[in-house]
Amino acid sequence: MIILGIDPGYATIGYGVVEKNGSYLRAIDYGTIETPKSESIPVRLAMLDEALTKIIEKFHPDAVSVEELFFNTNITTGIKVAQARGVILVCAIKACGRLYEYTPLQIKQSLTGNGRAEKKQVQYMVQATLNLKSIPKPDDAADALAAAICHASMPEYSARILN
Amino acid sequence: MIILGIDPGYATIGYGVVEKNGSYLRAIDYGTIETPKSESIPVRLAMLDEALTKIIEKFHPDAVSVEELFFNTNITTGIKVAQARGVILVCAIKACGRLYEYTPLQIKQSLTGNGRAEKKQVQYMVQATLNLKSIPKPDDAADALAAAICHASMPEYSARILN
Repeated sequence: MIILGIDPGYATIGYGVVEKNGSYLRAIDYGTIETPKSESIPVRLAMLDEALTKIIEKFHPDAVSVEELFFNTNITTGIKVAQARGVILVCAIKACGRLYEYTPLQIKQSLTGNGRAEKKQVQYMVQATLNLKSIPKPDDAADALAAAICHASMPEYSARILN
Repeated sequence: MIILGIDPGYATIGYGVVEKNGSYLRAIDYGTIETPKSESIPVRLAMLDEALTKIIEKFHPDAVSVEELFFNTNITTGIKVAQARGVILVCAIKACGRLYEYTPLQIKQSLTGNGRAEKKQVQYMVQATLNLKSIPKPDDAADALAAAICHASMPEYSARILN
């Protein structure tokens, strides 16, 4: 089973592709989609749409795992990220059809056993679980891999299916 | 020139297609896209994407005019609408390339001369400007037509271009 994890954003969007074979997990690819500040929001959203569609067409994921949005005090950023998330959800459901959503707490809990674990601890577990030589960079890519690992280790019945 | 006005939403999305010929404005089509509550958000967003793409392909607008988002106290609804708006912006920019955004105040000001005009007054001006037999229904369609009329009557230099 191929799982695509996504860390939503509008400037930097993390993605991580993980293959699950029994209990064995392997990173196939990870990285970020970046949209330039010099462009308008609609152009950046269209760039995200195009780049993510290419990734989905390349890896044919069986499931897409997206980190749930939480709003902090910055509502302007929140609106932009929510707009990007809408684009991501449509991309994913058109190409894959199986979308799952996890809270940061669920992801941390799943990887480290502690829902309030430090970012570094989560990143270390991403590296260890996928048997990587170093912690994946940048953080957005590591977060996306964490979302994919979280789904891989989740019993189907407890996953929050988005469709 | 064909202008497509859009009133963003995720349950009901208003659209209005207006032709501008000199100073003469004519409604070509208007209505709503509705996404069923029984479906998940990603499925509803994909439905919106499909329906809006069909409208754009049918009428080939030269410009798309979108009402700007304002958040009220309901942040959950706000996130959903922002997600839908992201999908609308990508649809519009892929197919048309000329996107404009107006605040509710600008739209009211443009149609009635008063930025704080009542909804009914704006609707009456939509009917009068487009020479319609009655006020367009539902409200979302009238709001979308108002966004299109606002753009039609705006000097190019004062429009807030989104791309």
